[in-house]
Amino acid sequence: MVVAVVKAAVYHGPGDVRVERVPDPVLREPTDAIVRILRAAICGSDLWFYRGIVQWTPGDRTGHEFVGVVEEVGAEVRTVRPGDVVIAPFVASDGTCSFCRAGLQTSCVNVSFWGDDANGGQAEAVRVPWADGTLVPLPAGAADDAALLAHATALCDVMPTGHHGALTAGARNAEVVAVVGDGAVGLCAVHSAARLLGARRVIAIGHNPQRLELARAFGATETYDSHDPEIAERIVAETSGGVPAVVEAVGSQQSMDLAIRIARPGGAVTFVGVPNAVDRPDLRELFRKNVSLRGAVAPARAYIEDLLAHVLEGRIEPARVFDLELPLDRIGEGYAAMDGRRTIKVLLHTG
Amino acid sequence: MVVAVVKAAVYHGPGDVRVERVPDPVLREPTDAIVRILRAAICGSDLWFYRGIVQWTPGDRTGHEFVGVVEEVGAEVRTVRPGDVVIAPFVASDGTCSFCRAGLQTSCVNVSFWGDDANGGQAEAVRVPWADGTLVPLPAGAADDAALLAHATALCDVMPTGHHGALTAGARNAEVVAVVGDGAVGLCAVHSAARLLGARRVIAIGHNPQRLELARAFGATETYDSHDPEIAERIVAETSGGVPAVVEAVGSQQSMDLAIRIARPGGAVTFVGVPNAVDRPDLRELFRKNVSLRGAVAPARAYIEDLLAHVLEGRIEPARVFDLELPLDRIGEGYAAMDGRRTIKVLLHTG
Repeated sequence: MVVAVVKAAVYHGPGDVRVERVPDPVLREPTDAIVRILRAAICGSDLWFYRGIVQWTPGDRTGHEFVGVVEEVGAEVRTVRPGDVVIAPFVASDGTCSFCRAGLQTSCVNVSFWGDDANGGQAEAVRVPWADGTLVPLPAGAADDAALLAHATALCDVMPTGHHGALTAGARNAEVVAVVGDGAVGLCAVHSAARLLGARRVIAIGHNPQRLELARAFGATETYDSHDPEIAERIVAETSGGVPAVVEAVGSQQSMDLAIRIARPGGAVTFVGVPNAVDRPDLRELFRKNVSLRGAVAPARAYIEDLLAHVLEGRIEPARVFDLELPLDRIGEGYAAMDGRRTIKVLLHTG
Repeated sequence: MVVAVVKAAVYHGPGDVRVERVPDPVLREPTDAIVRILRAAICGSDLWFYRGIVQWTPGDRTGHEFVGVVEEVGAEVRTVRPGDVVIAPFVASDGTCSFCRAGLQTSCVNVSFWGDDANGGQAEAVRVPWADGTLVPLPAGAADDAALLAHATALCDVMPTGHHGALTAGARNAEVVAVVGDGAVGLCAVHSAARLLGARRVIAIGHNPQRLELARAFGATETYDSHDPEIAERIVAETSGGVPAVVEAVGSQQSMDLAIRIARPGGAVTFVGVPNAVDRPDLRELFRKNVSLRGAVAPARAYIEDLLAHVLEGRIEPARVFDLELPLDRIGEGYAAMDGRRTIKVLLHTG
């Protein structure tokens, strides 16, 4: 008998995400764990279905970022135990295949996405496939450390995604890095380039003064208003020919065009968001300038331990992207606020 | 008084390239040289204007591949002298700017393209801007060595372009490399990957048995028929998940799609041709697989000395791509043969 006692957010149509009682998650495979969620988040990529740009089916569960307490584990789970507080990356992976061992867990041969199988992360509890490969434990006492829980929730997706973007664009020890987009991922890319990867100049591009102020706090050395019609020419001039490492963190045609235009010949552009709104990149410009374009879903799992260490040592403060906290029951307000660009990112208290 | 004594190929419209008497080229800048051409070639990229896909103006001069004898040099030219036999890469570059010093001569701040200023390379003589930065001398006696002249003409564009594609896609010491396209550039990419870059397996993809045979001679270990509807699935299966280094050497939407589909997660696709016929690459697939797409006009000048050394040591035989030789006067036959895919590449005798 299935008992509907936990609450979870359920998609009912564009603009309509509701919290409902759902059946308790249960172990299915010996490699599964059940996690009772403490914190979850709303992602910029959740707005694709919220806005009806990608088609979801009413009844689908939402959410792919969460931190929680392991409640139960399958017989084959070795690395986490009931009571552990854990971070889940935004995809589950087996941890043992050749892609996982190479640090490309998003290409795991057993990759599993939250939301599939009625198993979303904006909920009170979730079934975690491949618990050993997927979950990263937090230090003892984390459950009572609100600041750490918030940072940890930022390590599920946005911080690793920004970090992956900066790293694969070539930000390590770069003379100049540019990040197009002042959303949570763009801000995290700035933070990574400036605080972790040793870039000398970090250019943040956006059009929200508060967000660009946070970009400065995250380490940006320069900010540009993306509405400036001459922004590309100005950045190319200010960098003596272009930026060698560019992160495109918006996912629109306009931002892709800007990212490619400011890229230095021989440089790289990494786009870190699902390219649902990019019609086509300027291939002639890539060709003419020998610029690499990398589409880059972040293998978050590969980075979480290191990023957690940086959080614990105070080097990065990714939770600063959360500027609205809500209980799970009020998730609808959170979606509306993100859709209206009134908030950068929403932290949900689910416990 | 301008004397029209040299012959040059002139574009008159789609399908119509004629050899005519034109004014002698003359020195304009102290950094120029005048080169009397011995050999020239017709490039696959010349077919874009020949087929009317890119718009040219009647009267434009054609050709960007040539080898010849220096006839006259400007006052500031230091590295070549009259009488030297030289190779010209397919763009001229100053050799001193930061991009040239970084080996990205196609992004030279003074880059100059053959064909501009009534100065094409399918001709008896040409003005070479930035002679010191542009020209590479051949060994003494080269003018009388027909085999060397043919190899050298392949070093103007196709061999460096194939090499650049293979190199930037990551072919060096790669377990597997795939080259989509059996044209001259694709064949040269195979040759580079197999003979120069140490790739263990080199997959050549095309649909012309004779060309695939040449690919084998150039070092391909496997060949695939591009008309096979299951080619992508087969290659992914035969490579346990995809090819880490892929060169796209056709420039069509279909070949770009195939290149991206067979790329291994975490790998790279370099496209080495002008992407005039590519509507859009599959950005979602790049994103999902973390594949880099590099548009890559080859900085041929960066590679010519090394490639020439490999030719002289017998390691590569790039002139085997020339399967039709014609005097300049019969260039029309050469264009028609390439347009009809009856020949891989045409070598023109201009001297």
